[in-house]
Amino acid sequence: MSLLYEVKEGDEFGIYVLIKAADVRTARNGKPFIAFRFQDRSGSMDGMYWSATEEEINKFQVGRVVFLRGDRDNYQGSPQVKIKALRLAEEGEPNDPTLYVERIDMKIDEIKEQINDALFQIHEPNINRIVRKILSEHEEAFYTFPAAKRNHHAMAGGLSFHTVSMLKIAKAILEIYPQLNSSLLIGGLILHDIGKTIELSGAISTEYTFKGKMLGHIVIMSEMIDQVCQQIGIDPDKEPVVLLKHVVLAHHGKLEYGSPVQPRLLEAEILHHIDNLDATVNMITSVLDKTEPGKESAQIYPLERRSFYQPNFRK
Amino acid sequence: MSLLYEVKEGDEFGIYVLIKAADVRTARNGKPFIAFRFQDRSGSMDGMYWSATEEEINKFQVGRVVFLRGDRDNYQGSPQVKIKALRLAEEGEPNDPTLYVERIDMKIDEIKEQINDALFQIHEPNINRIVRKILSEHEEAFYTFPAAKRNHHAMAGGLSFHTVSMLKIAKAILEIYPQLNSSLLIGGLILHDIGKTIELSGAISTEYTFKGKMLGHIVIMSEMIDQVCQQIGIDPDKEPVVLLKHVVLAHHGKLEYGSPVQPRLLEAEILHHIDNLDATVNMITSVLDKTEPGKESAQIYPLERRSFYQPNFRK
Amino acid sequence: MSLLYEVKEGDEFGIYVLIKAADVRTARNGKPFIAFRFQDRSGSMDGMYWSATEEEINKFQVGRVVFLRGDRDNYQGSPQVKIKALRLAEEGEPNDPTLYVERIDMKIDEIKEQINDALFQIHEPNINRIVRKILSEHEEAFYTFPAAKRNHHAMAGGLSFHTVSMLKIAKAILEIYPQLNSSLLIGGLILHDIGKTIELSGAISTEYTFKGKMLGHIVIMSEMIDQVCQQIGIDPDKEPVVLLKHVVLAHHGKLEYGSPVQPRLLEAEILHHIDNLDATVNMITSVLDKTEPGKESAQIYPLERRSFYQPNFRK
Amino acid sequence: MSLLYEVKEGDEFGIYVLIKAADVRTARNGKPFIAFRFQDRSGSMDGMYWSATEEEINKFQVGRVVFLRGDRDNYQGSPQVKIKALRLAEEGEPNDPTLYVERIDMKIDEIKEQINDALFQIHEPNINRIVRKILSEHEEAFYTFPAAKRNHHAMAGGLSFHTVSMLKIAKAILEIYPQLNSSLLIGGLILHDIGKTIELSGAISTEYTFKGKMLGHIVIMSEMIDQVCQQIGIDPDKEPVVLLKHVVLAHHGKLEYGSPVQPRLLEAEILHHIDNLDATVNMITSVLDKTEPGKESAQIYPLERRSFYQPNFRK
Amino acid sequence: MSLLYEVKEGDEFGIYVLIKAADVRTARNGKPFIAFRFQDRSGSMDGMYWSATEEEINKFQVGRVVFLRGDRDNYQGSPQVKIKALRLAEEGEPNDPTLYVERIDMKIDEIKEQINDALFQIHEPNINRIVRKILSEHEEAFYTFPAAKRNHHAMAGGLSFHTVSMLKIAKAILEIYPQLNSSLLIGGLILHDIGKTIELSGAISTEYTFKGKMLGHIVIMSEMIDQVCQQIGIDPDKEPVVLLKHVVLAHHGKLEYGSPVQPRLLEAEILHHIDNLDATVNMITSVLDKTEPGKESAQIYPLERRSFYQPNFRK
Amino acid sequence: MSLLYEVKEGDEFGIYVLIKAADVRTARNGKPFIAFRFQDRSGSMDGMYWSATEEEINKFQVGRVVFLRGDRDNYQGSPQVKIKALRLAEEGEPNDPTLYVERIDMKIDEIKEQINDALFQIHEPNINRIVRKILSEHEEAFYTFPAAKRNHHAMAGGLSFHTVSMLKIAKAILEIYPQLNSSLLIGGLILHDIGKTIELSGAISTEYTFKGKMLGHIVIMSEMIDQVCQQIGIDPDKEPVVLLKHVVLAHHGKLEYGSPVQPRLLEAEILHHIDNLDATVNMITSVLDKTEPGKESAQIYPLERRSFYQPNFRK
Repeated sequence: MSLLYEVKEGDEFGIYVLIKAADVRTARNGKPFIAFRFQDRSGSMDGMYWSATEEEINKFQVGRVVFLRGDRDNYQGSPQVKIKALRLAEEGEPNDPTLYVERIDMKIDEIKEQINDALFQIHEPNINRIVRKILSEHEEAFYTFPAAKRNHHAMAGGLSFHTVSMLKIAKAILEIYPQLNSSLLIGGLILHDIGKTIELSGAISTEYTFKGKMLGHIVIMSEMIDQVCQQIGIDPDKEPVVLLKHVVLAHHGKLEYGSPVQPRLLEAEILHHIDNLDATVNMITSVLDKTEPGKESAQIYPLERRSFYQPNFRK
Repeated sequence: MSLLYEVKEGDEFGIYVLIKAADVRTARNGKPFIAFRFQDRSGSMDGMYWSATEEEINKFQVGRVVFLRGDRDNYQGSPQVKIKALRLAEEGEPNDPTLYVERIDMKIDEIKEQINDALFQIHEPNINRIVRKILSEHEEAFYTFPAAKRNHHAMAGGLSFHTVSMLKIAKAILEIYPQLNSSLLIGGLILHDIGKTIELSGAISTEYTFKGKMLGHIVIMSEMIDQVCQQIGIDPDKEPVVLLKHVVLAHHGKLEYGSPVQPRLLEAEILHHIDNLDATVNMITSVLDKTEPGKESAQIYPLERRSFYQPNFRK
Repeated sequence: MSLLYEVKEGDEFGIYVLIKAADVRTARNGKPFIAFRFQDRSGSMDGMYWSATEEEINKFQVGRVVFLRGDRDNYQGSPQVKIKALRLAEEGEPNDPTLYVERIDMKIDEIKEQINDALFQIHEPNINRIVRKILSEHEEAFYTFPAAKRNHHAMAGGLSFHTVSMLKIAKAILEIYPQLNSSLLIGGLILHDIGKTIELSGAISTEYTFKGKMLGHIVIMSEMIDQVCQQIGIDPDKEPVVLLKHVVLAHHGKLEYGSPVQPRLLEAEILHHIDNLDATVNMITSVLDKTEPGKESAQIYPLERRSFYQPNFRK
Repeated sequence: MSLLYEVKEGDEFGIYVLIKAADVRTARNGKPFIAFRFQDRSGSMDGMYWSATEEEINKFQVGRVVFLRGDRDNYQGSPQVKIKALRLAEEGEPNDPTLYVERIDMKIDEIKEQINDALFQIHEPNINRIVRKILSEHEEAFYTFPAAKRNHHAMAGGLSFHTVSMLKIAKAILEIYPQLNSSLLIGGLILHDIGKTIELSGAISTEYTFKGKMLGHIVIMSEMIDQVCQQIGIDPDKEPVVLLKHVVLAHHGKLEYGSPVQPRLLEAEILHHIDNLDATVNMITSVLDKTEPGKESAQIYPLERRSFYQPNFRK
Repeated sequence: MSLLYEVKEGDEFGIYVLIKAADVRTARNGKPFIAFRFQDRSGSMDGMYWSATEEEINKFQVGRVVFLRGDRDNYQGSPQVKIKALRLAEEGEPNDPTLYVERIDMKIDEIKEQINDALFQIHEPNINRIVRKILSEHEEAFYTFPAAKRNHHAMAGGLSFHTVSMLKIAKAILEIYPQLNSSLLIGGLILHDIGKTIELSGAISTEYTFKGKMLGHIVIMSEMIDQVCQQIGIDPDKEPVVLLKHVVLAHHGKLEYGSPVQPRLLEAEILHHIDNLDATVNMITSVLDKTEPGKESAQIYPLERRSFYQPNFRK
Repeated sequence: MSLLYEVKEGDEFGIYVLIKAADVRTARNGKPFIAFRFQDRSGSMDGMYWSATEEEINKFQVGRVVFLRGDRDNYQGSPQVKIKALRLAEEGEPNDPTLYVERIDMKIDEIKEQINDALFQIHEPNINRIVRKILSEHEEAFYTFPAAKRNHHAMAGGLSFHTVSMLKIAKAILEIYPQLNSSLLIGGLILHDIGKTIELSGAISTEYTFKGKMLGHIVIMSEMIDQVCQQIGIDPDKEPVVLLKHVVLAHHGKLEYGSPVQPRLLEAEILHHIDNLDATVNMITSVLDKTEPGKESAQIYPLERRSFYQPNFRK
């Protein structure tokens, strides 16, 4: 059975999908309709369900799996589903919502292994203990959360996948520039976004939490370091701890991007570059994946609304 | 005996002053000279000491009180001392350096009283306990530190004086806008700059500390709240605590001014306005105090280098 | 009988409201419908009237009072009326449009009294005469106009209400900072927005006038001072008059906000802060008034689209 | 006898010049010296007079003509005079200061003629009368003042010269774009900078006046129109008058350049372009005049510190 | 027979128009409709065609001429066609698409003559040969292309019309400022936008080409000069050639507007001003042409969304 | 024999150095002195030579090697030489200027090898031929030029060293993100700054050339590709060539940094990041190399004047 984004425009299909959003609105003829957003592992797509009955409105809730029959249509440049029929997936059918969540393209075990390997590059003992402790306390969330609500790595597991991808760059950079302090770079890198496990609500229908909105993941992260220091008896005023916090606090690179201090450590500056690079590659790649050779991609909002060109030749 | 800024241009004088800075440089004729900055309670003024001997260079160190004879001169629009003679203040003379430090114009007891009064407007019990605890722990520094290294309230006691001045505005505003939450506004106000007791080195020759440079007073303040919560057993995830932290974190008003989150509470927004207003009045007043009626003041760098006009009529 | 914003979502109601806007559009089925905006003292709300006849289009004009039966609905986060029936209010019913205009929450007499009291703080005789004369010439408009077309204090009487609210802050500030020149601050404050009585068209369906668009209220205000000087025989080149004009011209604080000169008087700078503070409190309060505890408000466009949080605890 | 800028570097000379500035400073050897700025019609140049006696300091005052003997030297890329001897010009010598003031390169009569010709393109009778009246009231200042304190056309007569130069462009543009309203364009153009006759102090050692600093020439100009309307009995609320004021108020083009309103008339927008164009040509030409072919000019501060290249080929 | 913009609101009409755009969408009732954009020489206007059949969708394609019967309607301030009937123009009817394309208001021969005249002001022989050669190679495109995809001179022939309009200003300016190098100014002016003949796809349904998107017309222009130098044997490192390229590369005036170098030649700076001036006049005039006296025009997006006022009096 | 930066403050020394700058100025006592800048492989340092004779001025020219005796002094935070004696290096002494030029820390052969290796990652044949041809034509300059006049890699050989350092990052990134087109990334990377061999004058006393100032290295590079295409018979409109040019043109990342087009290829965007990262590491490292543990470095101007902290612990 095919996936949402494998269907060609104009083709009819019948597939299982997850309801990601379901807004009930009133049509111009006065009758209610449901504006759906369907999702499977290939991505998500909108579709309108006209003249919905009260019963249908109650039945087709966010988080339910449905069997959807329809055509793939096009509305102002974006693909859309023209719904022909819709029913809830029944027992015996693939009705587990987690089957339909977009996921990263790498096994969890492999990710964990890479993170664990990286810990050995943290030679400074205080930083090593702090990073291990925080990782172990937030392990489950760290390996299942997205890296962001939208934009880059906004999928289940995206947070740890983004971290591993950055670690690969960091390892190469540590070899190229041996003057770098690996404890600060690797330690700061692993922790830099872990505050998102508290800033965001989780992998499914991700929202900002109350604490996330009021304090932000950068300050939350800094607090985690303090708590752990207190738990395992490390003086938070020691140079390595203050510098580790600095790396985390400064990793957005500029005040206007939300860092309360500008980078004043080489490693803090470099972490900002690596983070930026990986997020940028991820955003561009995810639109180019849906772009044919010789065409331009959809616009990417956080990259000044630029679209990108998919060349005809490879390599 | 008169003060530095009471002497008129061209007049000769002999007064006791503190050496605030003493840079040894080489003159174009190859001989060393000392570029002094002298200070008393009326302000500070530069003066060059030509052809200094090795002995004089060793004797006239920063922090020493000297008896200075000279003329008040003018160099490119700024007052300057033309040094005629210089000797260390001896025993029996007023040689205590603290006599020459610029101070705020209000008694400490009065300041303390106003701060204590304000605590009664913090009705929310968690916030009340947190604020009292932090105040008591940093009491000495809070009442002696300046509010900044330069710019506004950059004098001994400036930090608490600035806080009291803001409290007066806050009280008036609480009466005008009864919808404001006084626990958040007053609590946040008292704490908003207390992180400077750790960010700065003290009242004399104020510098940024290591922690101050690496973390900044906004994050330091947020950490103080966490530590105190842990000490007195308050859950830091309670709404009042999270909101108190938000007020402190957001009080610079914009990300580019160093707040890691923008104000999302009415009280955080208002605190930013009050802080700004008091700092602005202080900066303008301190230049207008040295400006004659009908003239323009010196330029104020943090206010877009504007100069201000001193009107001829009063009230 | 309840008001528009007292009805809960989903409830049916029947109430008298004013038609604030009535745009005739063509539905996708080709038939005309009316996009209404209804208003009473609690605020205003949209509602669509489908398949309108020619007669209905003629009858339901802006400015008419109607009896409206419907449900309170929700459209993309904003409350909306689902219209069940609509008829003009008849004689004997509350059909006076002025009953439905949103008004400030303070009696006109009280406002006038406060303004008159403030005049006694203008000790400089020229400024005092100018302010009294301008006030008396624009009295009616001053007490009925809004302070703006939208954003803050955009309601009948908003202009004088905003002025009085600012006067309260100014009085407190004059006590806290005795160095302020009260003639310039109070005089400038009372006049600062009075040019809006010429820039705007009035309290009902407020628009910019021709002069308002071409010259702006800041220059209009400056002209008013000149005219009055000429009428009552004051030399417009006298220092107090020039400074009063400066305060008015500079009160937007920065060139990019429309002031032709930057503040070069302490009082001009302070007036800008007070104006900003009162407008900000007003905008935030008016969205928080419609926000339940523990929730976030609607976004405020002039405040960088921020939403604000309504705490669960009071005071 | 040659002029200051006709002397080659390294050459000795003896010429009459005006003292434009004479700052008495103290040298590092403790003795006073005078930092002179000399001027003749070719430009102005600095020179230091070492070990000045009290008598010399009193004698060589700003505004006096002196006979100067010296070498042309070079200090960090700028020409400088190395003073050999200096004495006051005596009776019978060319000691009239006005002989040494930099002047525009056009006769006053020619300028007046061009301005008078342009008046005939103001067909709208109200605008015509207003412009004529203002011109006649400020005639003397208009033909002797500079157009600015520094930057462009900062020389005696520069104001009217700049106006005539702009008029030439305006006439060409009126022919190219017949849709333009010549009354508004020509009327606004002639008046646009006339407020400088009040904003600035005059042709010699030009400073901002009190009114200039507090109100700025844009608002001063708008006031002039009001005064004249009142004097000659024209209703200031008539469309042509309001639009003429708009053209003047908006001619800086953007709020951040000091216009209280943005251009909302085609003619206001065009006037801004013409003003900009003439000022830019004037600034670049005045540095290129001192630049040899194949070399780069001095940097121009108001043009983003750019330097300009003088080509080797002409036309 | 009248034109689209000659019909008054509410009037019924029957006229021939070109289909400029035809988007097929699904109405809320599930049926397809066509969102048309019709065009004739007076401008273009939208209209919805409800419940379109498959056959109609195939028939009414972009580029076809149709006979349109309808009313002129108004939708949210913009004119709109309410379609009553629609059929393809038949043989014997005016069905040539080029009849309906908006065109400039000047004959091609006249334009060519003016361009040819201007060539005589390019005295420098290398520049003269380069400009003539490039012109002759791109002659057809140069006289038929628009000057832009939208905004200013976005009509057939707009590129050469814009060039001639700028030439008129340049000629006047060369007389006013004789210091200008006419070879560089006129040569650069004629070439400045000729790269658009490669950046854009043509006069009808103008799009950016692949090269246009990837390199931009500024670099394309610079390459043209190189190619021509190589073809006619001119050394591209000669001063006149390098400067001609500079003028073309720098004519956007600032890096952020897409010039890879800032103007460092007086002529490059001036060309930027002339370009700007003509584009601005064109944009404002085209909205004022559709604005009644005493009213405000539509907003112009590239001019900070300003609207412009159409005065009641002429000249 | 020690180097300039190996001498401690206050120590006396006698070493051979190159004269990098020698400005003759007049001291306040009227006598000429020479402001020297001396250089050896450890860096460069200023020193004043008082009361210079005509003969000395002629002898001590830029580019000469001298034997310098003096003390290491400190002037306003920067190290300075206090000159005791100075004489030209004689025959038999190390008087070859190239011995004193600051050089990169890598052998040329190693650099060449790395560049040659990288060519094998350019699989697209047209790009491969273009890159090889340009490299071979500019080989000597490519391996001896600096990467910039100042800021980063501003030393002999800096251009190729910077390129190799970037290649190392690029290789790592190509492995991490296999979706990248290595022909475009590696080809664009090798060429991206090669235009500097024409923009700059060479390794010693580097200046911008005439073409460099007028066209800039980005456009020069684009021209090189065109010339080479023409020489080796490749159609410059082929997709790979246009894209290669795009990568080079867009590598500054934003218009305001001098790219005439924004990146629209993933590889162009990535190249910008790699360039930025390597330049940043180079700038920070070169100030941290001169900073002791626990101290702050000098400020780096292109990095918002930030200083960086040198941690006490390594790795």
